[in-house]
Amino acid sequence: MATFVSTPSVVRLGPQDWPRGFRASVGAAAIKKAGRDDLALLAMPGGATAAALFTRNLFAAAPIEVSRRHLKESRGHASALILNSGCANAATGPRGIANATECTDAVARAIGCAGESVLVNSTGVIGVQLPMERIIPELPRVAARLATSADGGPLEPFARAIMTTDTKPKMAARTIECGGSTVHVAGVAKGAGMIRPDMATMISVIATDAAVDGRTLDRILRHAADASFHRISIDGDTSTNDSVFAFASGVAGPCDEAALAQAFREVACELARMIVCDGEGFERSLRVRVIGAGNKHDALRVAETVASSLLVRTAITGGDPNWGRIIAAAGRAGVDFRANDLELRVGGILLFARGEPLSIDKHAVRAAFNGTHVEIEIALGVSSGADAEMNSDDFLSCGLTTEYVRLNADYTT
Amino acid sequence: MATFVSTPSVVRLGPQDWPRGFRASVGAAAIKKAGRDDLALLAMPGGATAAALFTRNLFAAAPIEVSRRHLKESRGHASALILNSGCANAATGPRGIANATECTDAVARAIGCAGESVLVNSTGVIGVQLPMERIIPELPRVAARLATSADGGPLEPFARAIMTTDTKPKMAARTIECGGSTVHVAGVAKGAGMIRPDMATMISVIATDAAVDGRTLDRILRHAADASFHRISIDGDTSTNDSVFAFASGVAGPCDEAALAQAFREVACELARMIVCDGEGFERSLRVRVIGAGNKHDALRVAETVASSLLVRTAITGGDPNWGRIIAAAGRAGVDFRANDLELRVGGILLFARGEPLSIDKHAVRAAFNGTHVEIEIALGVSSGADAEMNSDDFLSCGLTTEYVRLNADYTT
Repeated sequence: MATFVSTPSVVRLGPQDWPRGFRASVGAAAIKKAGRDDLALLAMPGGATAAALFTRNLFAAAPIEVSRRHLKESRGHASALILNSGCANAATGPRGIANATECTDAVARAIGCAGESVLVNSTGVIGVQLPMERIIPELPRVAARLATSADGGPLEPFARAIMTTDTKPKMAARTIECGGSTVHVAGVAKGAGMIRPDMATMISVIATDAAVDGRTLDRILRHAADASFHRISIDGDTSTNDSVFAFASGVAGPCDEAALAQAFREVACELARMIVCDGEGFERSLRVRVIGAGNKHDALRVAETVASSLLVRTAITGGDPNWGRIIAAAGRAGVDFRANDLELRVGGILLFARGEPLSIDKHAVRAAFNGTHVEIEIALGVSSGADAEMNSDDFLSCGLTTEYVRLNADYTT
Repeated sequence: MATFVSTPSVVRLGPQDWPRGFRASVGAAAIKKAGRDDLALLAMPGGATAAALFTRNLFAAAPIEVSRRHLKESRGHASALILNSGCANAATGPRGIANATECTDAVARAIGCAGESVLVNSTGVIGVQLPMERIIPELPRVAARLATSADGGPLEPFARAIMTTDTKPKMAARTIECGGSTVHVAGVAKGAGMIRPDMATMISVIATDAAVDGRTLDRILRHAADASFHRISIDGDTSTNDSVFAFASGVAGPCDEAALAQAFREVACELARMIVCDGEGFERSLRVRVIGAGNKHDALRVAETVASSLLVRTAITGGDPNWGRIIAAAGRAGVDFRANDLELRVGGILLFARGEPLSIDKHAVRAAFNGTHVEIEIALGVSSGADAEMNSDDFLSCGLTTEYVRLNADYTT
């Protein structure tokens, strides 16, 4: 880590800054088009505990394979993460793997660490090789800028450099007071759901300056992702490059695990919500909360089925509290409950109970639908009381719009 | 069956006629709007073996419950089926059940059979009670017209009377020569996929004059539905009223089971195809054929995942052979295969193999996309040779269009 010059002055972290022990810099390699930042480097000069979740798609991109390998070889430690937008390096065969490795090697040389201490991912067009002739010369320049970048500097340039079809950068942060020390958790993300034709999907990076071992960080990351990125859907398609990275620099010292997990979860949920609300053709978000299931898994299954239903999602776009579509989606989720026990509330108003729609003031319900968010609550009636709250889950989605279809149909390869 | 006057003259069945032993008539009860036929009665004067498949949605409509009960009580025999469009009698509570039973009782009285020999279903708006004051007086008039209707008369009036948002009636028929006798199989269907806001979905009736016992008819129907209605999707939503009825009058005598099953399958597949091609906002159909899976179930799972992918379906609408979306959907189907072994063909042209896209003539591929049907073939490479053909399956869908979204969003309850 010889090339990192530590800044002796006290850094005051803002709410939109990387935690201490992290430095970021960006660069422009004209990967897809000239003049915009498309390289983002995050460095941990003192090293960091690392964990990651990668796409389960069988067509995982080359950088995912390389990162998986490096994470294993380094036993959950990392000194840097290099990301690029404009090209996903997916479906690129053995040459794609070689190119991804060449990128991590170039970064390792520039910052003075082992190759396997550098993780990598790419986002953008599938089936096209990285323009190595433009990327490789740029990497040392990006690394050189780390020396002048502030410890715990701003998240935004990094968040912007990884954008593809996102319309705004996505950032979130939390602080925790832990035994006299302030621990920071901050994250960035880029758009989800393989929303644009050949664009390969969601990437998130969450960093903390807490000191935490690899196994704990992995557990915290999984819980956070489970409560956030795994509970949103734009089009149900996963991509070749989906990934969530977590790093812990340890600079702020140890921290209560529950508090850290809570901060990770909040950051991840905020990023996930931003991803949904920046989906292509976005007009209105939709949260489906299911309570009173037989167990948590059943609750999630019903929530996901309703939130993903095309008919429910088009009704949300239309601003219509169409209870028929909502209960029909719940009824096909493959979860056992008694139709007559289901209660449906939209925007807090009871619309359906005892197997029949209620005579309600349609204007009141429609008014609840005029905002940019719709809240659906389904009580299955399999469990009740405290159990009903325990056996609950929720899922976030958005209305399906003609603009979504137009954007995804009009594009041609 | 006293009110049925048998026609002594020889009936020549056309390719669009009900088989012998069936008579149909229609009527107008102004259920949703006046002046169009919305009641369809199919009678089997000599009785018939009956089988049916009903929606697995927990919110099964009242007529589905009544038909299920009647089929059980009559031990798989029926003398009539009464259908109506304009109102689904779904989410209508105990009064809905009473109304459906009153309809079957009225038909039974009019044609002189037991109540449980009459099956029933409804299609149309959910959550609204049937207008019994208009339906009940009309039923004897519809039944009276049976006496003058021809044995094996035309399918079309029946097919038209059950239409909701369908733009055309759906009919298909086959004949089989069986030991000197001609056996007929004919069917009608109405639109699928809960395509219109509160419209409740697909109904099909397939009839034969073959003599076949209940268990065999049930088996034949399940196989036929499995190869057809269970392999199409418009929006993935099932409805409260989905049903497929099968009746065998026996008038033509026994028939080879394999030949009869083949005819049922062909009729069902033709109807299923018509349903997809008459879906809301339809522009282009899509068939995904998967070969070379580890087993048939895996092949179906991949075919369904790809055919149902929003990104694939919008690409089809755009007329774009977007291989990236297709392989990414295959890769998330939850089926194990090696990404490098997958071969993708669209319109017969190999687009992707050995983990990389092939340099192909894009204009040639795009030309193959300009029709109203797109054919995708995915070879998974898990099995090969004769096994690859065995471990195959296919799924039919259609492009997702802005018109679909508009129709489903613009409607308000």
